[in-house]
Parts: sequence; C-alpha cells; structure tokens
Amino acid sequence: MLHIIENLLDTAQLSQLTSILTHQHAQWQDGKLTAGISAQQQKNNWQLSRQDPSYQAMANLCLEALQQHPVFMSAALPKVIMPPLFSAYQLGQGYGMHVDNALQIHPDSKQLMRTDLSLTLFLNNPADYEGGELIISDEYGEHSIKLSAGDAVLYPSTSLHRVNTVTSGQRLAMVTWVQSLVRSDEQRQILHDLDVSHILLRQKLLATSDQAQSTQAQRTQAQRGQLSEQHSTDQQLTHQAIEKLNQSYHNLLRLWAES
Amino acid sequence: MLHIIENLLDTAQLSQLTSILTHQHAQWQDGKLTAGISAQQQKNNWQLSRQDPSYQAMANLCLEALQQHPVFMSAALPKVIMPPLFSAYQLGQGYGMHVDNALQIHPDSKQLMRTDLSLTLFLNNPADYEGGELIISDEYGEHSIKLSAGDAVLYPSTSLHRVNTVTSGQRLAMVTWVQSLVRSDEQRQILHDLDVSHILLRQKLLATSDQAQSTQAQRTQAQRGQLSEQHSTDQQLTHQAIEKLNQSYHNLLRLWAES
Amino acid sequence: MLHIIENLLDTAQLSQLTSILTHQHAQWQDGKLTAGISAQQQKNNWQLSRQDPSYQAMANLCLEALQQHPVFMSAALPKVIMPPLFSAYQLGQGYGMHVDNALQIHPDSKQLMRTDLSLTLFLNNPADYEGGELIISDEYGEHSIKLSAGDAVLYPSTSLHRVNTVTSGQRLAMVTWVQSLVRSDEQRQILHDLDVSHILLRQKLLATSDQAQSTQAQRTQAQRGQLSEQHSTDQQLTHQAIEKLNQSYHNLLRLWAES
Amino acid sequence: MLHIIENLLDTAQLSQLTSILTHQHAQWQDGKLTAGISAQQQKNNWQLSRQDPSYQAMANLCLEALQQHPVFMSAALPKVIMPPLFSAYQLGQGYGMHVDNALQIHPDSKQLMRTDLSLTLFLNNPADYEGGELIISDEYGEHSIKLSAGDAVLYPSTSLHRVNTVTSGQRLAMVTWVQSLVRSDEQRQILHDLDVSHILLRQKLLATSDQAQSTQAQRTQAQRGQLSEQHSTDQQLTHQAIEKLNQSYHNLLRLWAES
Amino acid sequence: MLHIIENLLDTAQLSQLTSILTHQHAQWQDGKLTAGISAQQQKNNWQLSRQDPSYQAMANLCLEALQQHPVFMSAALPKVIMPPLFSAYQLGQGYGMHVDNALQIHPDSKQLMRTDLSLTLFLNNPADYEGGELIISDEYGEHSIKLSAGDAVLYPSTSLHRVNTVTSGQRLAMVTWVQSLVRSDEQRQILHDLDVSHILLRQKLLATSDQAQSTQAQRTQAQRGQLSEQHSTDQQLTHQAIEKLNQSYHNLLRLWAES
Amino acid sequence: MLHIIENLLDTAQLSQLTSILTHQHAQWQDGKLTAGISAQQQKNNWQLSRQDPSYQAMANLCLEALQQHPVFMSAALPKVIMPPLFSAYQLGQGYGMHVDNALQIHPDSKQLMRTDLSLTLFLNNPADYEGGELIISDEYGEHSIKLSAGDAVLYPSTSLHRVNTVTSGQRLAMVTWVQSLVRSDEQRQILHDLDVSHILLRQKLLATSDQAQSTQAQRTQAQRGQLSEQHSTDQQLTHQAIEKLNQSYHNLLRLWAES
Repeated sequence: MLHIIENLLDTAQLSQLTSILTHQHAQWQDGKLTAGISAQQQKNNWQLSRQDPSYQAMANLCLEALQQHPVFMSAALPKVIMPPLFSAYQLGQGYGMHVDNALQIHPDSKQLMRTDLSLTLFLNNPADYEGGELIISDEYGEHSIKLSAGDAVLYPSTSLHRVNTVTSGQRLAMVTWVQSLVRSDEQRQILHDLDVSHILLRQKLLATSDQAQSTQAQRTQAQRGQLSEQHSTDQQLTHQAIEKLNQSYHNLLRLWAES
Repeated sequence: MLHIIENLLDTAQLSQLTSILTHQHAQWQDGKLTAGISAQQQKNNWQLSRQDPSYQAMANLCLEALQQHPVFMSAALPKVIMPPLFSAYQLGQGYGMHVDNALQIHPDSKQLMRTDLSLTLFLNNPADYEGGELIISDEYGEHSIKLSAGDAVLYPSTSLHRVNTVTSGQRLAMVTWVQSLVRSDEQRQILHDLDVSHILLRQKLLATSDQAQSTQAQRTQAQRGQLSEQHSTDQQLTHQAIEKLNQSYHNLLRLWAES
Repeated sequence: MLHIIENLLDTAQLSQLTSILTHQHAQWQDGKLTAGISAQQQKNNWQLSRQDPSYQAMANLCLEALQQHPVFMSAALPKVIMPPLFSAYQLGQGYGMHVDNALQIHPDSKQLMRTDLSLTLFLNNPADYEGGELIISDEYGEHSIKLSAGDAVLYPSTSLHRVNTVTSGQRLAMVTWVQSLVRSDEQRQILHDLDVSHILLRQKLLATSDQAQSTQAQRTQAQRGQLSEQHSTDQQLTHQAIEKLNQSYHNLLRLWAES
Repeated sequence: MLHIIENLLDTAQLSQLTSILTHQHAQWQDGKLTAGISAQQQKNNWQLSRQDPSYQAMANLCLEALQQHPVFMSAALPKVIMPPLFSAYQLGQGYGMHVDNALQIHPDSKQLMRTDLSLTLFLNNPADYEGGELIISDEYGEHSIKLSAGDAVLYPSTSLHRVNTVTSGQRLAMVTWVQSLVRSDEQRQILHDLDVSHILLRQKLLATSDQAQSTQAQRTQAQRGQLSEQHSTDQQLTHQAIEKLNQSYHNLLRLWAES
Repeated sequence: MLHIIENLLDTAQLSQLTSILTHQHAQWQDGKLTAGISAQQQKNNWQLSRQDPSYQAMANLCLEALQQHPVFMSAALPKVIMPPLFSAYQLGQGYGMHVDNALQIHPDSKQLMRTDLSLTLFLNNPADYEGGELIISDEYGEHSIKLSAGDAVLYPSTSLHRVNTVTSGQRLAMVTWVQSLVRSDEQRQILHDLDVSHILLRQKLLATSDQAQSTQAQRTQAQRGQLSEQHSTDQQLTHQAIEKLNQSYHNLLRLWAES
Repeated sequence: MLHIIENLLDTAQLSQLTSILTHQHAQWQDGKLTAGISAQQQKNNWQLSRQDPSYQAMANLCLEALQQHPVFMSAALPKVIMPPLFSAYQLGQGYGMHVDNALQIHPDSKQLMRTDLSLTLFLNNPADYEGGELIISDEYGEHSIKLSAGDAVLYPSTSLHRVNTVTSGQRLAMVTWVQSLVRSDEQRQILHDLDVSHILLRQKLLATSDQAQSTQAQRTQAQRGQLSEQHSTDQQLTHQAIEKLNQSYHNLLRLWAES
C-alpha cells in the first residue's frame, strides 16, 4: 500500500536543506557506492557524503520530522529508520528498475536492519525539473509519483521501482528505509485503518456529546431530565465501544509487533 | 475467554427437551462410551443414545438455536459444530478433572474435527439439583459455573475442567464442541471485540443522525442550512470510519479464517 | 497485486454468452439479493438468476476457461472458485464503494468459502458503453479498469472497490471469487514470480542447448570434443539449478498451501 | 525426519500381495503415467493399474494396516492418505533424482491434497534383488534404504530422492503419500517425541505403582501406613504431571492441526 | 492465564521497601505522568519518582527477586522487564478500567518494548487497607485479586483491568511489565506446563531410583541380580523419555522464542 | 539439514591455532563449566579458557573466516554468532548424547541468544586420533562426521548429538552456535536453494551471453543482424527472469528475517 505523507517539511526547512545541497561545497559522491550488486549497474545519481559537515544536522531534521508526523508513524510503525540519503539527479541521470536489498547494515549501530518500507521525500518542486518521476511497478501498470516539495511517498520495499531519467533541471530528494515493528504489509494496513477509524470516531463522539449538551440548553428542565438519562446510557455504551476499539488496536499490535 | 450465551432456548423449547429426557423410555447409555482414554476413568454420567428416536429432532433444535444466536456466532465463528450430547448426572455422579481430546471423529461425516471450543447448555434450573457445577480451572483458582435453564457457557477446550458430583436432584445438560474458523482464542477474541464495537457504533451513528434531524426541525431555515452542510460532512466522515471498521473486520477474518 | 488475465474467452465464446444475456427471456433479478448488509445499499445492477435455464452451461464455460488459463492458475492457485455471477449495468446503474464479505456460502456445497481474490471478466467492449469502470481504491488514488471483451482482472478481495455509474449503453460482465490454496497475497505473489522465472529459464535453457548443438556442427571434430565436454558439465549444472528452482517452488507451496 | 515403520504387514499379508503382483494376469502399466512433468523423464518402472480387479482389496489392506500402526499414526498424523501405488522395478529399471509434486489430485475425491510425507513399503526381501535402494539425499550425503519385506520408510516429501537401478531380480513395493494434520515437519517431530515420552512414562508410572504395592506387602503394618501416605501424595503429583503432559500434547495438536 | 508468584520478597525486604515508601521524604508524583492517553483520565494514584535517591536500589532489589524466582522465570520467560513503578493509593484513590499500551519506551535503553505481561507485587497486607483490589475483567465476570505482602500476580497485558478505590488505609504496590521471549499466551502456557511436568517427573524418577536401590538391599543376591537387570533397562527407557521431554521443551522454545 | 563448510581455514591458519592449543601454557578448563544441567553429566572434555591470552585473537580469526565463507553465510544467515569454544578430547574423553540449550547468554553482550544452528570446525586431521566422531542422531540411524582439518559441519541445534570417546590421539575442534535471521530450518533451506540457483544461473547467463558473442564473430554480417535482434530479446527476457529470482529471494528474506 502506498501512503502519501503530506507536509513532512515546511518551507523554512526546505529552504535550509536545498541551500545546503545546492551550495558549491556540498560533498557529493557517486550513488553506486551505496548500491547492492544487482542495483549497482542501474544507479546513476549523486549522493551527499555522510562526511559532509552539514549531513548530520540535515539527517536529524528529517528524522525528527518523520517521528512527529502522525500519518507516517501510524502507517509505518517504525522500529528503525535508516539515516537518510540525500540525492541529486542531474541532466541525463536516473535509476533503472531494481528491488531494494532485504537487509542493510545500519551505518551507526552496524546492526542488520530489514527494509520493510522505502520512503522518498521530494525536496524541490515538480516545476523545477522534467523527468525524475519515481515509478513503482506492478503487473497492472505503473504508478508515477512526482510530489510537491515537502511531501513524501512511503511504499513497500518489496516492489520493483525506478527513477526516470531527468531531462531538464535537477531533482533533489531524500530517501530512507524503515524496518517496521510489524513486518507484514497486510497487517500494517489493518492496524492503520483501525487507528484512523478509532481516532475519528473518538473525536466525533466527543463533538456529538458537546453538541447534545448545547442543544439541551434550549429544552425545558423536564425534557432535559428524561433525555439526559437516556443520553448518558447511550454515551456510556458508545464510550465503551470506543475503548474496545482502542483495546483491539493495542492487542493486535501486541500480536504482531516485533520488538 | 469464557462467554455466557443467554437465552439460547426459550421455555417452550426447554419443556420439550426435558420432557423427552425425563420420559421413562429415553434410551440412556453410560457416558464412558464416548470418552477418550484419559477421560474414561473420570467420567460418571448418563448420555442419551444417538439411536434414541427423539435424538435427531432434539439435536437439530439445539443446532439451529446456536446458529441463530448472534453472540454465539460472533464469539465462536463456527466451522463445524459436533452433534450435541444430552447428559444426565444423577445422585453421586460427576466428571473428574480432564482435558478434551484435541481431535474427534464427527459421527456423521466421519471426518476428524478439531475441538477449539466446548459448550455446556444447562437444561434445568440450579434449584433442581445440588452440586453439578461446571468447574473450569486455572492457576489462580477455579471458575464455578451453574446457569439458568436455557443459558450456555462457551469456553476454550484447552482448559482443564470437571463437573462436581451431584448431591441431590438431577442435572440435565447438552454439551457440544466447535471447530472454529479461527483457531486461536486470542484472534477470535479480537474479532469478537471488533464486531461488537462495529455494530454498536453503527447503530449509534444512525440514532444520532435521526436525532439530529428532529432537532433541526426546531431551528430557523437559515440555521438549518448552515448546520446541515457541516453535519453532512461530519456524517460522511463518520460513515467512512464505520465502513473502515467493517473492512478491517472482514480483512482480519480473511487473514485468520481457515475455510 | 492486480493481474490482468488476457483472452480468457475467445470471440465465439463471447458471442455465445452475450447472445444469451441480451435475449429477451434472460431471467434477470435485482443484484441486491446477493449483497451483504453493508454492500446492499451500494449495489444497483441486474444479475442473471441461477435458475435461468442457460445459467449452468454459461457458468461451466467460464469455470473451464479459468481452469485452463495458465496465468490465472499460477497467480490465483485456486482451491475453490465460486459459481460465476453474470451482471448487467444499464443506464444509471452502478455499485458504490464497498468491501466484499470475507466469507460466502458456496451455493452448491453449502460450505463457507473465504474470498481471497475477486475477478471481473468483461463480456462486452469498452466502446459499447460509457462509464462502468471498475475502480479499485488505494490511498495514492484509484486504479480505473475497463478491459476488452474476453479479458479479466484478478485482484485481492481486501480492497475497497466500486463500479462507476453507466452513462450510456450497457455493461455486461461476469464476476466471481476465489478461495486460494495460499491465503496471503504476499506469499502468492512470490510463488507466481518464481513460477514465471522457472518456466522461462527452463525454456531458455533448452533453447540454448539446441542452439549450442547446431553451432557445434560447424566446428572441427577436435574443437567439438573439447567444447562438448565443458558444455556438458555446464549443462548439467544449469539443469540442476533449474531442478532446484522447481524443488523450491514445490517446497514453498507445501509450506503455504491449505488443502 | 525419517521414520522406519516396522512390521506394517505380516507374512500372510505379504504372500497375498506378492502372489497377486507376480500373477501373470496382473495389469501393469508404465509408471510415467502418474509422474509430474519434471519427474516423467526420470521414472522407469511398472505400476499396477488401478483398474486391476485385485487393486482395491490390496489398497484397502495397506490403508488399514497403516491406520492400525501406532508409530505411523503418531509420526504422520494423517489427514488424507493417497490410494497406494504398487510398483515393480525390473532389470535395468530405476527412478532418477526428483522431488514429488506439492499437490496431487486424489483419484477418488478429486480434491487436491498436499504431499507432506512420502512412504515406501517394501514388499519383497533385500535378498530378492540387487540395486533398487531408495536414496534420500541431503547435502551431507545420501541415506540408502532397503528394508525387509513388510517394513516401510516414512520421510518428508520435501526431499530429493531416487531409486537405484535394479541390477538383478525384481523389486516390489507400495508407495503412497500423506497429507498430515500438521504441515510442518518440525512441529510433527515435537508432537511425536511428546507422544512417545507420555506413553512410556504413563506405563512406567503404573508399573512403579504396582511394584511399590507388592514391595509393601513385605513390610510391617506401621511401616506401611507411613510410607503409604507419602507414596500416595507422590503418586498423585506424578499422576498430575502425566496428565499435564497429556494436556500439553492435545493443546499443541489444537494449535497446529489443520482439520 | 493468571499466575500467582508467591513469596517474591521476604519480610526483611518488604520492611526495607515499605519504610522507604512511607518515609516523609519519599518523592511522590502524580501517576497520570506515566499513563497513556486513554488511561490518563482513569488513573488516580501516587508514584515514586524515578529520581528519588532510593529508587534505583529498590528497583534492583525487585528485579533480582524476579530473576531468581523459578515460577516467574518459567511462566514469564522474560526478554525485557521494565524498571518497576512503586505506587501508593490513598483514601479515595483508584484506577478505572483500562488496557495497558502495547508498546512502551524503556526509560534506560530508550528502546520500544512490547508489554506482553503485567505484574503487580503487593507490598503491604490486605489487612492494612480496604478496597484496592486489582480487578481483572473477562466476560464471565471479574477476578478480584488482593494478595499478602510479598506475593505478586502475573497476567496478560491484553486484559482490561482496574484498581478499586481505596476506602481506608493505604495500598502500596510495585507494578511492572514484561516483554516475553514468547509472545503468545497460549504458547507460553504450554511451555510452562511442559517445564513443570518435566521437572517433577525428573525428580520423581531419581527418587524412585533411590528407593528401588534401598528396597533391593533387603532381597537375596539372586533376586537382586534378576531384578537389577530388568530395572536397569526400565530406568534407561524412563531416562530417555525424560531426556526427550527436555529436548521437546527446548525445541519448542527454539520454535517460539524471539531473541 | 546438514551442511559441510569446506576450507573454512587454510593450512597456515590451522597451524597457528593448533600450535597455540598444544602449547604447554594453554589455559584449559573442564568442559562441564559451560554445559547446561542436562548436558553436564554427559560432557567430558577440555576447553580453552576465554581468559587465555591467545583466546581473543583465535576467536576473531574463526569469526572472520565464517563471515567470509559464502556457503556458511548463505546457509546460516547469521544474526549472532557465539564466541567460539576451543575444545580438546584426550584419551577416554567424549560427550554423551545431549541436546543443546535453546537459549544461551552471550558472554559479551549478556543478551540471550537462540541457538538455531551448531557448528563444529575440525582443527586436526582424522588420522591424528581414533574415535572422536561427531554423531548426529535421527530415527533412521546416525550420521557419523569426522572431517579434514579446516572443514566444518553446520547442523540444526534441535538434533540429539554426541562425540564418541577418543581411543587414541587427541581431537582438537572449535564449536560455536548461530542465531539465524531465519529461525525455521525449512525456510532457511529454501532460501539457500534459491540463492544457489540464482547465482549459478546468473553466471551461466553471462557465460552464454559471451559465448554467443564470440560465436557470432564467425558469421556473416547479415546473419549477425538477424540473430542479434532475436538474441537480444531472448537475453532481455532471461535477464528479467534472473532479476525476478533475485527479487523473490529478497522478498522471501523480508518475509522471514527477524532483525
């Protein structure tokens, strides 16, 4: 399942990142250096060196933005997020069809991590370059993804995907991988659906409760007494149903989370 | 998880069953005949022969009652229900601590079935006999269960359990086993919780929707227009959340149901 | 994962089906009759009655076509295929967003079956009607599917989907559901990928082997001797690798198939 | 895990089978007729036609012998046993290295069955032919199996195996496949180990209990009273431990059995 | 499954803890500070600050006691134990019905841990306060738990539970959570049952072996010779059965342990 | 599944290790110190102390050799490798039948690790001692393993195994345990089979591609053009099939790897 994560970075944050990336002293290196054997011959782009003095601050900014974005957290249920890679595709560059390696070595902890989800954050706008679409392939056809600066796409690392050749301008992006607490895409999707429903219904329930109270203020006291009692039992049942949703969500998470 | 299934049979159905069971020509046999090796020496009761001319009608009555009871269906998710056994415990009879066999041969299809859940339906009232409690054991202590005529208890067949010796009167009961579509007790409980929440919230939503409409009738037209629009978007979001709950329930069932 | 099953029916078979469906005595009934509670209010179409005298022959024709189509068999790994439903959407008809029930009762065996996969076979051409697209929804957007007569789409029953309102002409289709031997979409996809690779590489290997032999005929005898020996060891290793692929496929199927 | 099933047939049963198989009117056919595509070119033997008038009686004799053999039942936990194939390997015949198909169509029920376990029952003695060993391969080397008439080997169908070319005499055997209630070889092995331990310890406990009683007869009454009480508590604890083993076995079976 | 862990702390340890907790300088804070969103409004108690100078020593004392208690270790199979929380419920305080969060951040390692099991250790005696029962709820009714000082209850974190309002005196307790090596309650229970049976039968076997030897001393040498041989084979078989139990336990643990 | 890991150490490395182990100052200790309760009475050998000044260098040498051996890496998929134990069996020493503990504490990280696989590396040659075979037992009989110096055997820790008594000379070996990323032996075997096939077919494809090019050099230009085009499509399809194998391998690894 694809998820679009909107507004992961705001305009100020984007400016900060792009000014560093387009600065003349940015330390770029050949993207092939971090590609697996099968992907190596497909990959043709630049990546910011992790030794670049600005790298760590940029990486932290992105990681914090991810950890504070409720849609990302609910849809990805991250256990580990890889340190981001900042990439630039210039005229004629692209990345042929490939599948990401199942396991990567985390550069800090030196532990193997499993790549359950891939994420691409677009750092400049579609108007700034031609080509450069992220193409995620399935048998029916191909999803073509080119988002506004600050938006990201999160998708299962099991898919074949590529980046179209850039035919004008320059494409700036951040990519990273997530090892999820919940390995299966099918299970993660059910959890995300339940989470979204639970939150929306909890809000709606509270709204209804407030609205009911203001409506009541216009009634006679006798009407109020009768309605209030019935309303209170209703509210209690609804409240219990919402709590049961919450319990179901947490018990599913217990059943599925590898921690 | 234990579930109490209330009012599985009504008074008329109970009279019909008990008058057959207490009739002088009822064909009883020793309960040991249907016990596994380990249970055989623990079991001391009477069971109605499946050759008794009334057996089949009685069995059908019980099976239909089970299949029409929404709590039983939601909590048990039955794939196969064994033909019921009708038992009588008379003065001094009981059933020592035992565990039910994991697999039994279905007497009609001759197929092996897995006993995921056990069910005892009480056919006469607690006042009619002393002793005869169904005791379900765990390390903390013991659940003692003795229900009104027509009520049943559904519990995991993994537990150790026994029937206390009857010290006066006679205890009449129907027992059966269920192979569930969903083998795991933990998974079945989550599905049941979701099902209960989903149904309650759907009803509540419709009630709220009707109430909101009647409240609106008392407002000016201008107020109505404005509120109506906002209300309609709210209703739509709530409706989508309820549908997502339904989708989550069915997708969990797909993930877990053996069919 | 979506799969397009091409040329499931040929022109003759399509003519046969559509002439029955458009005959004045075809016995249509309201599609709501076979919809679950949640889908009922969304569904607005006609379905051919299973009592229609032509129904059984039409159903058999479609079931046999499915069972003989290698892509369908490899991608769906069917354990049970539901008897097809033939539907007509006329001007103004459609089917709102819904999720298919996880379990359905098979009309012949009366057994519950799990709906892992849904299939729509288009019986007339896109030019014959406007609207009527099958829309399969995910968060990124919506897949819109409208195929040539004789082609089908196979997709996971876990998805939300709908049929757009027909705005001119009439849309004829056959729909059915599959309970797969392999419940998980992720697992089924890996099996299908392996199956496709295995068959292609086996064919390629044989072709290479033949080509190598004809190439050899043009060489001197001495060259031939030497090359032949090396070639023979190569061929043997390749052959073993292909057999191991076959073994891996069958052992994965053993691991995952519910039978 | 390999299991040797000893004395599956007795001398009288073996005579009955071999006299039919070596009778001049036995209806043999080419073994390739029942081989999958990959196995077909490896297979070179004769098989008794299922249309042979003696076939059904022979098959029943073997199936009943299997169902009454406690080691087979405990180690295989059969859900379905395929109708046996009776095969003859004559001078120069054999069966090259192959893997059995994961799924086969049961000739009676027409249902797909999963081949979890393969079984070869040797119908004549090793002295009656040279060659003809069943070779089951793993990376360390190869198990070579040639058993006395009446003995059988049960082994996982996941393995690569072959039958060595017969270089004198004739090899008669019965082969069949089992779909187990418990799909995983690892799980089935744990269940078999527990079953064997449970039965042996239960027998040992009863023996100890008898022996203790006879020993006691030689003691003074005072000694007896004291020892008896301590013994009785010990016996009770041991009995409970044995019952818990039984419960663990059945609860593991519940967890793993597909029924 | 509930487990009562008896005598986790002895009288001296309890005195040490309670004297710190009831000391005037103990640093208490509002329990809401460590509650999840859903639990926050239910929780009304005091908790000792982790910054209290005595906290670490108290926590270590409890963690060590847990790690040395054989019933706790066998029933919980702990992978991670959360640092304990020490709580006080004073007059009018309690904790409404809630479910514990599935994931918590370990305060030392900052890693997410899964809460499979919850534990409450009672630090003062039931006579010291009224109310304050821990109520663990299931559909049949409610388990009410109020243990002697030094005893603890271990129960699945999937359950709904609450603490009744204290109506006199003060309730002191330690609570913590366990991420188990074995996530599923059903699996953990089978392992615990096997472990208990294995240890008891191993002890019994050795006892029998000793007893048999002393009995033998009273027999003639000839009797001894004969019995001894038979006994030795019996002992060997029993010993093998006990070893197989041990192997089964370890192989189940291998199958299920997340490490 | 057993795997023989050949040439794990070369002659120079072996000399280095054995000269340390046979040096008079090597710090040996009784092997019982590192045995579990059940294994303790079976174990009779010497082990080099981890405090021996040469220990760490020797351990590192072995761990690096393992991590660079492609067969070991592919077959074991190690997540954690235990620090090696160096053992010596002298005249009359051996290790009775036992099963390794499922969980061990890693001496460096103090974390529990699961022992999925056991490895024995032979440090001197079979000619240097009599007896000392590693015997891995299954019901069919016993695998007897005694390898050349520098070779190792990798086998599932679930098996019962022993070391025969040494009857002359001295047996030097290194043993260790692996917690695999993939817990199940059945799954690991499928991954290894796929990996081996994938690598062999990829090499073969490239070889074929080169050979085809050199063959072509001998043809006329017209022939070349025509063949080249067809060849290029063939190559592309084969290349895609090989890539799909790679994708299947990585997606299976994602499905199964605990990281």
